[in-house]
Amino acid sequence: MADDLRPLMPGQLLARGVCRHLLSHDFVTVEELTPERGLRVDVMALGRKGEIWVVECKSSRADFASDRKWQNYLPFCDRFFWAVDEDFPVELLPEETGLIIADAYDAEIVRMAPEDKLPPARRKAMVAKFARHAALRAQLARDPGVSLSSA
Amino acid sequence: MADDLRPLMPGQLLARGVCRHLLSHDFVTVEELTPERGLRVDVMALGRKGEIWVVECKSSRADFASDRKWQNYLPFCDRFFWAVDEDFPVELLPEETGLIIADAYDAEIVRMAPEDKLPPARRKAMVAKFARHAALRAQLARDPGVSLSSA
Repeated sequence: MADDLRPLMPGQLLARGVCRHLLSHDFVTVEELTPERGLRVDVMALGRKGEIWVVECKSSRADFASDRKWQNYLPFCDRFFWAVDEDFPVELLPEETGLIIADAYDAEIVRMAPEDKLPPARRKAMVAKFARHAALRAQLARDPGVSLSSA
Repeated sequence: MADDLRPLMPGQLLARGVCRHLLSHDFVTVEELTPERGLRVDVMALGRKGEIWVVECKSSRADFASDRKWQNYLPFCDRFFWAVDEDFPVELLPEETGLIIADAYDAEIVRMAPEDKLPPARRKAMVAKFARHAALRAQLARDPGVSLSSA
């Protein structure tokens, strides 16, 4: 299969590898979900038992340094990870977060994130949000003529 | 936008119009979801409050007559609808079900289905199943190179 990476930005390439790898852990994923206004996570993953993980993908030191929002994602997930490439200076990353080393093709969980379980009502709301986000993307893919103006 | 309908079967064309219309009711949709082994619904829709609707799309009298499974879908939804085109003999359809008249481009709910609310545990399981189904389809669309063998 042709493998045309040109339209993707560096962070999106990492996200692609992350999503492929998380599937092998039986987590399905969406990209660029908005948990609430003003926030957008790179990858949100959903496990078989309703576990919700967030993965922020950082393609460079500058990309990481400019991130002022990551702690705002913590209330929306059970575990939080960074995904970076193998050349990233990982000592910059905060402790008490997970670490995934990724490229465009695959990834590996190097340090499991600590778990801080979502309250049940928040989990229910996030699974519903995840479902809506994923279904809209899948519908757009199978029917490019759909109008999302009413969605 | 080019509108190439050739790869879709008659029932899938109805499903496309149904999914477009349900979005205007703020329901997101997936096609061909398997609620349990041996069953596959044409369209499953998810509303803002977690409502789950199933829509079976029948392109002809013969297509309807050969359906032996529709009552098995009832335990997996709050409301059950048929979707048919405007030439379908709707008097064949069982009472106490919803009716949607559809074509490939849009649809209309002609008769609202009666509501038979899912138990909370079943609803939770179906929302999770819907989320997984939708996310896998969306991932395949954005990354055709992904392997679903482990999913």
